Amino acid sequence: MSTESTETTERDEEPVMGEQDREREEFLRVARRAGEAAAGLAPLPRAAKDAALHAIADALVAAAPEIVKANEADVARAREAGTSEYMIDRLSLTGARIAGIAEAVRKVAALDDPVGATVRGNVLPNGLELRQIRVPLGVVGIIYEGRPNVTVDAAALCLKSGNVAMLRGSSSAYESNTVLVNVMQAALAGTAVPADAVQLVPGTSRESVKHLMRARGLVDVLIPRGGASLIKSVVEESTVPVIETGVGNCAVYVDADADIGLAVEILINSKMQRPSVCNAAETVLVHAGIADAFLPAALAALREAGVTVHGDERVRAHDGAGEVVAATEDDYRAEYLSLDIAARVVDSLDAAVAHIRAYGSGHTEAIVTTSQAAAKRFVALVDSAAVMVNASTRFTDGEEFGFGAEIGISTQKLHARGPMGLPELTSTKYVVTGEGHLKGRTG
Amino acid sequence: MSTESTETTERDEEPVMGEQDREREEFLRVARRAGEAAAGLAPLPRAAKDAALHAIADALVAAAPEIVKANEADVARAREAGTSEYMIDRLSLTGARIAGIAEAVRKVAALDDPVGATVRGNVLPNGLELRQIRVPLGVVGIIYEGRPNVTVDAAALCLKSGNVAMLRGSSSAYESNTVLVNVMQAALAGTAVPADAVQLVPGTSRESVKHLMRARGLVDVLIPRGGASLIKSVVEESTVPVIETGVGNCAVYVDADADIGLAVEILINSKMQRPSVCNAAETVLVHAGIADAFLPAALAALREAGVTVHGDERVRAHDGAGEVVAATEDDYRAEYLSLDIAARVVDSLDAAVAHIRAYGSGHTEAIVTTSQAAAKRFVALVDSAAVMVNASTRFTDGEEFGFGAEIGISTQKLHARGPMGLPELTSTKYVVTGEGHLKGRTG
Repeated sequence: MSTESTETTERDEEPVMGEQDREREEFLRVARRAGEAAAGLAPLPRAAKDAALHAIADALVAAAPEIVKANEADVARAREAGTSEYMIDRLSLTGARIAGIAEAVRKVAALDDPVGATVRGNVLPNGLELRQIRVPLGVVGIIYEGRPNVTVDAAALCLKSGNVAMLRGSSSAYESNTVLVNVMQAALAGTAVPADAVQLVPGTSRESVKHLMRARGLVDVLIPRGGASLIKSVVEESTVPVIETGVGNCAVYVDADADIGLAVEILINSKMQRPSVCNAAETVLVHAGIADAFLPAALAALREAGVTVHGDERVRAHDGAGEVVAATEDDYRAEYLSLDIAARVVDSLDAAVAHIRAYGSGHTEAIVTTSQAAAKRFVALVDSAAVMVNASTRFTDGEEFGFGAEIGISTQKLHARGPMGLPELTSTKYVVTGEGHLKGRTG
Repeated sequence: MSTESTETTERDEEPVMGEQDREREEFLRVARRAGEAAAGLAPLPRAAKDAALHAIADALVAAAPEIVKANEADVARAREAGTSEYMIDRLSLTGARIAGIAEAVRKVAALDDPVGATVRGNVLPNGLELRQIRVPLGVVGIIYEGRPNVTVDAAALCLKSGNVAMLRGSSSAYESNTVLVNVMQAALAGTAVPADAVQLVPGTSRESVKHLMRARGLVDVLIPRGGASLIKSVVEESTVPVIETGVGNCAVYVDADADIGLAVEILINSKMQRPSVCNAAETVLVHAGIADAFLPAALAALREAGVTVHGDERVRAHDGAGEVVAATEDDYRAEYLSLDIAARVVDSLDAAVAHIRAYGSGHTEAIVTTSQAAAKRFVALVDSAAVMVNASTRFTDGEEFGFGAEIGISTQKLHARGPMGLPELTSTKYVVTGEGHLKGRTG
């Protein structure tokens, strides 16, 4: 630290460009090139974009040894830093995984191009032809964590929708991401798509993320993908419009009128089918009228699955095995992503809705009921991106919804909500065609 | 100032709640009531909302004397402060104007309800029924300037689309706005719509705007309506998602192949039909190949209309009258809203597009051309909310587009772009209906 201070003093005497200024200059240079590339990419037809995606897929497979080598350096550094095996696994790339990533790029090429589609159109009373058509957003910033496959997935989805991707992955994957982006840019150099259409945000410091977050006018939208704290900091610090994704505190509500066996199955599937993801259930709410019948079966099934239940007093009253932990307010708010679940008995459907409004994250809630009236009321009152009736919360997913791919699951209400496919990566513009139409007269 | 300092010292000794804390407490109380009202308003059917709008219209007419009295106090204060007659006129309410405002509310009641509409829907391969339906955004914050009629217009559009309006008008209209909101709340008290569905942000200080801008989680979206500096400060300081509206530096491009008479008419209509609004033309770009024929006619017509032209060297070469002012970079960027226009000769359509990309605000650009190829290329390359072909820029407007009303014109790409009608005041949610569907199995 003292060395640094001395350096600062020296700089003060003879000013040179500091490290932070250099990083910012470099960022602005990259962002401006991204903007130029966006202008060139936007009007390209589907065939040009698909050809570029296939060139990227081929190049990734061809460069697999080089990519694996860079990745080994990242993995070695992560091991030295004492990273968990789970995180090491997410970080690691093999030849087989790279082949899978390339295959996913080819799958994106096969999807419909959202750009140019007419959203609505008509002829106005004065004879003007009005069309609202889909256009790319422009430059899309993606901030994400460990997994380097996101680098390619996000770039492919952006490219297909006519957008330039500005990628900012975890610093732990910086060498892998650098090689992946270099390979993609080299592949694009031989196509109609500008090579600058895929960009890595330079640098690994916290400052480098801030440059991206403050780049209003250069970056059209930021999509943070990761944990709650990452997303919160992006939302608070960004002047670029943000699409919040992914935090899921999802609830299963078991109504007074429910098939007990079905309710247990949906609860266990929602919790257990993949506990570490955002659409896994983190809370179960049980109508008081069915608690006596449902809770013994549910608690037994959860125990068998290895799930720790954090229950309120009324849930614990049904806990023969004495294994239910007392729930706190924090449990009701928790996105556990683990083998834990909060449980509460509620006196009515409306009380379940009030609990969800107070503690939920607006991702996905499910009702299990045989009552048409209860299903209708739950759907009308629950304000979440997805509401499931007699289905597992795990179905909230771009693939499941038939979108072919997803860039994330939006939990905000502006622009996109729920799984985001290619159309959600577009904006629109109005094209108005006249024959010398003047306002105040009919043309 | 010294009095204030003394007061601060006293407070430091015996802490009491300061004015700012009180204002913030009051804001949070209002915002929470708005959130409660939003939950009650969202599921209401169209008939309930329309009845509430008619109740508001009737109440406004009945309370006209009371409203005019409050408005007179605002106007008197504005006069004392030396406010211009133009601004006084915008601030003033009369019985006739209130009748007009009430009539506009009835017109909103007659529009289609966007809430509940199915945006898309299908049955997935596993038998799940998927529907994406329109839902209200929730709590919509509107920050605006002088005109108190916006208070009622914005409240009506929000209510019709199932949203609670949190209104923050100019402090110069605070007494008028307070009475208008009181009258609307009293009218709602007799309807199915919660009275809290229309809220005025308490206080007139700069701090009170900040409470609204930092109310993420309580307010779902902020729509600033006003000048460039207001919008810029909201964008920079807000943690609530913002929809930018209104700044319009619109260009008319006269192509090499254009009918001179038509081009002059479109230019003059775009500039003169209402110079003070965002869709008025502020720049004219002329292809070099038509400059000799077009500019003498255009400069004469602009001179006759009383417009000051800020031209580049090549425009000034055609200035027989010696009245064209030398254009600066600032002129190319200006949203004049006055009888001024920037003018530049460009060597190609692509050079016109480059000028628009560098200096435009992304609102509306027009091309005048007889060439189908030029029209197609201009539409493809210009990245603005609206692109006009052989029509005045003045047509970018919710009424003109047939939306029946507009809350503003978005110049950003996220969520909504161009004139925003009622559907742009909604979000969506996915409703997924199964019969015990579990992930990993077919139901």
